Amino acid sequence: MARNKYPEETVNLILDTAQRLFIEKGYEHTTVQDIIDNLGGLTKGAIYHHFKSKEDILNAVIERLFRENTLSAKWNKIAKDENMNGAEKLKALLYEAIVDEQEQTFRSMGIHFQNMPQMLSDLVLRSVNDIAPQAIKPVLEQGIQDGSIKVPFAKELSEVISLLANVWFNPLVFPMTDDDLNKKCQLILGMMSMLGVDVTDIYPAVYNMNRQINERESRK
Amino acid sequence: MARNKYPEETVNLILDTAQRLFIEKGYEHTTVQDIIDNLGGLTKGAIYHHFKSKEDILNAVIERLFRENTLSAKWNKIAKDENMNGAEKLKALLYEAIVDEQEQTFRSMGIHFQNMPQMLSDLVLRSVNDIAPQAIKPVLEQGIQDGSIKVPFAKELSEVISLLANVWFNPLVFPMTDDDLNKKCQLILGMMSMLGVDVTDIYPAVYNMNRQINERESRK
Repeated sequence: MARNKYPEETVNLILDTAQRLFIEKGYEHTTVQDIIDNLGGLTKGAIYHHFKSKEDILNAVIERLFRENTLSAKWNKIAKDENMNGAEKLKALLYEAIVDEQEQTFRSMGIHFQNMPQMLSDLVLRSVNDIAPQAIKPVLEQGIQDGSIKVPFAKELSEVISLLANVWFNPLVFPMTDDDLNKKCQLILGMMSMLGVDVTDIYPAVYNMNRQINERESRK
Repeated sequence: MARNKYPEETVNLILDTAQRLFIEKGYEHTTVQDIIDNLGGLTKGAIYHHFKSKEDILNAVIERLFRENTLSAKWNKIAKDENMNGAEKLKALLYEAIVDEQEQTFRSMGIHFQNMPQMLSDLVLRSVNDIAPQAIKPVLEQGIQDGSIKVPFAKELSEVISLLANVWFNPLVFPMTDDDLNKKCQLILGMMSMLGVDVTDIYPAVYNMNRQINERESRK
């Protein structure tokens, strides 16, 4: 295929191809050469005209993937729902984060945060400084007010929940066997029941998520 | 001063000077030029002969600082102490990490982990993959066995404690006012009492640590 005259189309073609390969082969096992080979005639120069590195392509893939931010839309809907108390909303937020399609696509790209300091550092800071106050804290505040959440520190609690859910409980940061996951879930269950929140019915989705990631990894 | 004939002495002079300036001015406010200006005649070339960058100097300062690892020696002593149960040992570990002199020197260098992705990422991974299994898990296992710790998941619990203590509760990662700290402490108190561990008597040391860091920051 000849080089596309329209840069935006070229960029989209590169991102489509990269995303497909990241999902098929895993991010770490995909080289820039693999991407070029699958672009049907686009040269190395053309790709480097738009992107500095493979990591740069990944960042663009992620940015495009989350541009619509379906999870955020669902979370807003949950936050405004008048038929749920705070504890139910907290559980719904966690559940949606696991089953959200964009999040699943992202997880399927086989990114290993352990080898990507900038991404891991961003994740840690974003979990505590953005996700906690914007998405989790308001729901905890409601729960404390309506009595469904038993621990009266909405800000601090939202930070701990966000950090544990996004980092410690994240198989892309700390890979887990089913047995590891099982024990982590039991500990989380105890901690959440201290809050007054029973999360057992989101566990099937959690196990499913972890199994998908492990199966993908073992296929590579 | 003429360039030292002995490279090791030159390196030590650079590290002594850098460490002193990091403590006085803070790491972020110290430039390589500041270090050169305080070396009495050593040239930029001489410094770059030994170190690639300011971050490289910092890493060498830290490595030298922790070469003896006084905290690790104290932790080993606690782990072997036959007069403490597991819960008492856990509390002693946390206390020593706060008052240890090397840790205090490290904290006094005004490092802002938020701006240092590699260091933050290392801290997160080290907390869960090294500190938790090596230092905290054995003490929790003893506590579970002797009945002083009430939650039977030593591995997972050690990871959560290490991650929260080293990252979430770390004023170099998430700066805190006294009021923030107060609420974090109350939440931790609740979580620790779920384990059967009362940590109230290490709080004065915690407040003292945070106050020192904030005073230093406000002086800059």
